[in-house]
Amino acid sequence: MMKKPLSAEILSVGTELLLGGTANTDARDISVYLSELGINVFYHTVVGDNPERLAGAVEIARERADIIITTGGLGPTCDDLTKQVLAGAFDLEMVFHKELAEEMTRYFREVIGVGSMTENNLQQAYLPAGCAVFHNEWGTAPGCAFFAGGVHVIMLPGPPRECNAMFKACAMPYLRALSDEVILSHGLNIVGSGESAVEAKLRDMMNGLTNPTLAPYAKEGEVLLRVTAKAGTLAEAEEMMRPVIAQVRGILGDIVYGVDALSLEQVVCRLLNEKNMTLSTAESCTGGLIAKRVTDLSGSSKIFPGGTVCYAAKSKTKVLGVPAELLEKYGAVSAETAAAMAEGVKALFGSSVAVATTGLAGPEGDGVNPVGTVFVALAAGERSFVARLSSGRGRARVRTLAANCALDMIRRFLTGLPVCADYRRP
Amino acid sequence: MMKKPLSAEILSVGTELLLGGTANTDARDISVYLSELGINVFYHTVVGDNPERLAGAVEIARERADIIITTGGLGPTCDDLTKQVLAGAFDLEMVFHKELAEEMTRYFREVIGVGSMTENNLQQAYLPAGCAVFHNEWGTAPGCAFFAGGVHVIMLPGPPRECNAMFKACAMPYLRALSDEVILSHGLNIVGSGESAVEAKLRDMMNGLTNPTLAPYAKEGEVLLRVTAKAGTLAEAEEMMRPVIAQVRGILGDIVYGVDALSLEQVVCRLLNEKNMTLSTAESCTGGLIAKRVTDLSGSSKIFPGGTVCYAAKSKTKVLGVPAELLEKYGAVSAETAAAMAEGVKALFGSSVAVATTGLAGPEGDGVNPVGTVFVALAAGERSFVARLSSGRGRARVRTLAANCALDMIRRFLTGLPVCADYRRP
Repeated sequence: MMKKPLSAEILSVGTELLLGGTANTDARDISVYLSELGINVFYHTVVGDNPERLAGAVEIARERADIIITTGGLGPTCDDLTKQVLAGAFDLEMVFHKELAEEMTRYFREVIGVGSMTENNLQQAYLPAGCAVFHNEWGTAPGCAFFAGGVHVIMLPGPPRECNAMFKACAMPYLRALSDEVILSHGLNIVGSGESAVEAKLRDMMNGLTNPTLAPYAKEGEVLLRVTAKAGTLAEAEEMMRPVIAQVRGILGDIVYGVDALSLEQVVCRLLNEKNMTLSTAESCTGGLIAKRVTDLSGSSKIFPGGTVCYAAKSKTKVLGVPAELLEKYGAVSAETAAAMAEGVKALFGSSVAVATTGLAGPEGDGVNPVGTVFVALAAGERSFVARLSSGRGRARVRTLAANCALDMIRRFLTGLPVCADYRRP
Repeated sequence: MMKKPLSAEILSVGTELLLGGTANTDARDISVYLSELGINVFYHTVVGDNPERLAGAVEIARERADIIITTGGLGPTCDDLTKQVLAGAFDLEMVFHKELAEEMTRYFREVIGVGSMTENNLQQAYLPAGCAVFHNEWGTAPGCAFFAGGVHVIMLPGPPRECNAMFKACAMPYLRALSDEVILSHGLNIVGSGESAVEAKLRDMMNGLTNPTLAPYAKEGEVLLRVTAKAGTLAEAEEMMRPVIAQVRGILGDIVYGVDALSLEQVVCRLLNEKNMTLSTAESCTGGLIAKRVTDLSGSSKIFPGGTVCYAAKSKTKVLGVPAELLEKYGAVSAETAAAMAEGVKALFGSSVAVATTGLAGPEGDGVNPVGTVFVALAAGERSFVARLSSGRGRARVRTLAANCALDMIRRFLTGLPVCADYRRP
C-alpha cells in the first residue's frame, strides 16, 4: 500500500525570464531531481518581480500543490522580493539572522576581498520565522524551507549554479524526509550514440518495465539513461535495479562509460590517476575545450602537465614540430596531421598519452573537407590511433563531439577496449 | 495618451517539460518576440498532457491575460489535447478542414516519403470553429488563432523549430494588428563589478525612472543592465533611452564594456580584428578556458594563432621559457611568473599581445597564497601589466573571474584605458 505521492509546483520569480532570452533551466533541473524523489511535478509557473502578481501566483499554487519550490528573487536588490511575499502569504514574520549577516560579512571580507559590504546585502539575512535555513556556499543569498498552511515551501536562489547546488545539498534531504518510500535512481552514462539510437535499442525492454523504470535523457553529445526504483528501503531499491542495469549494459555494450559518473573527463582523470599516467593535449578545432574540461576538475594537475592550442598552421610546426612538408602534402585537416600533433605534444610535455584534434568546426570550410569533419588522434607509447568524425553542422556541437571523442579514445585505450571502432557518429 | 498595453500568458503543454531534462525554450523565444511587439508577458505556465489540469490552467489564464499563447499538444497522438481543451473552454465546435487533410497527405507523400499516413494524423485537420488557420510549413500540425470571451488565443506546435517559424510567419502579423505600442530594450554589459555594487551606484537613478526602466541582472562574473522603453515608435523609444544610457555610462564609467554585446570575448575579438592584431594565451589556473572562449567564436582563427596550457611548473620553463630560477625565487603563483609566461607565449606564437594566468583555483592551496589568488598578466610590445585577483572560493568562479580579467585587460589596453586600475574584485 503506497501513499498518494506528493505533488510540487515550481514557481520561478524573475522578470528576466519573462523578457525572454533566458530559458528556465532551474525548473528543468529541479524537475529531474523531483522525479528522482518520486514527487510529481504538475506545474511550472514563471512570474516577474512584481509583488501582487507573485502573491496571486502563490495563492494559486498553494491550492493545487503540496510543495511549492520558488527559484529566484532572494538577492540583495530591491527587485528581490520572494521571501517577503511568501512570508506574507503564509503569515510569517521576517526574522534577522545574525549568524547569516556575519557569514556574509566574512564572505565579503575574505572571498570578495572588500572590507565592508554594501548595506543592501544585509537584507539577505532576513528569513521567515521558524524556517530551516539553507546556507549558501556558492553565493551570498541563503535559501530556506518551511511548512505552513498544509504546504511545504522551499526557496532557492535563481543563479543556476547556486540553485542546483543548494537543491542537492539542502532541499533534497528536506524532501527525502517527507516520504516513507525510498526512490533511488542511477544514471548510466553513454557516449558515442544518440538518444534515439539508444531508445530504439532499449524500446522493448523499456515498455516492459514499471518499477524500476528506464528513461533516456539527451545531454550535450551524450545520453544519460536513468534507472529509477521505488521501494521500502534503499537496499531493496538497489536489489531491484541490479538486474536491470546488467541487462542494459548487455544490450548497449562498451558505449556505457559509467554509472553515476559526473562526466567523461572525470572518468578519464580517475583512470589516469590509477595508472599513474599523464595526459597532454594539442587542440586545433576544439580550441582549448578538452584542456578546459580536464582542468575543470580539482586535482587534475597531477595528471595534466599541460597542452597547446595550435590554431594557425605555422604554430603546429613551430610549437608541436609537425613537419611543414607533411602539412603541405596532407593538409591541416587530415589524419596524418592529427597523429603528428598528438606525437608532438606528447614529446613536448613528456606525457604518457596525448590527444590531438584538427578539423572544421565551421561555419567556414576549407574547400576540401565538409564542415564538421574532425580528425582526432591518440598517441600512447609508440602507438597512434586516428578517428575521423563527420558531425555535421553547428560549431558548438562539432567541438563538443570532438572533445568527447578524444576523451573517449583515452578511456577506451586505458581500459583495453578497441580505440577507434564505432567512432562514426550514428 | 497610451492605451493600456496588452498582456500575454504563455501556456506550454507537455509532460516532458515537467519531467525535466528539457528547458522551455519555446516560452523563452516567444517572450523575446512579444517584448519586441510591446506586449507584456506576465506569466509562463507549464502543464502536462492532462485535460483537467490544462482546463484549470486555461481558466486561470483567461482571467489574468488578454492573450493566451499555447505551445505543444497539437500533434497526432492521444496525448495531444490542446485544441480540444481550448475549444471546450471557449465553447467552440471543432471543424474538419478538408484542405488541411489534403496538405497533410501531400506532406507525407512528398516530404516524409510514405504513400499513406496513419489515420490518427487526420485528427490534426480539426480546428476550433471560426479560427484563423496557421499553416505549418515546417511539420504537420497546423496552428490557429481565435478571439472569444474577450481573449485572444493562439495555438502553436511544440517542437522549437516549428514553434519559432510559425510564430514569426503567422502569430506575429496577427498580434501586430492588435497593438500600437512598441517596447525596445538595450543591455549594458558590465565587467569587474558585482550586481549589488552596480545597483548601489544606480539606486537613486533607478528609483526615479518609470519609462524607460533600468534593471540589473547577475550573469556569470558579469552584470547585464537592461534599459527598456515603451513608446509609439521605435525611433521614439531609442530617443527616450539615449540620455538614460549616457547617464548610466557617466555613473559607471569604463566598467561598461558594451551595449548589446554578445560577450566580452566577442568585444575583444572585434577590437583585435579592427587593429589587425593577434592574441596568444598562456594559461595555468584557467586551464584553456580563455582559449576555449575565444575559439567559441567563428572567425577567431584570424586573430588567435594559438596558446598553451602550462599546468606543471616544468612545462612553464620548457614550453614558455620561464627561467627556472625565477620560478624558484618567486613561486609559480606570482606576478613575476605571470609576466614571464605572457612574454614567453607572445614570443612563441609571434602574437601582438598575450595574456597569462597563474593562480590557485582551489580547493587545494600552495601554503603561501590564499585559494582564489590569481595573477593575470598582459604583454604587449615591450610593456607588461599584472593584476592580482582574490576571488575566494569556488573553482569555477575563480576560473571565470580570472578569464574575464584577462579578456578585460586586453579590452582596456586596446581602447587606451588604464589596464590594471580597479582590478580588485569589489
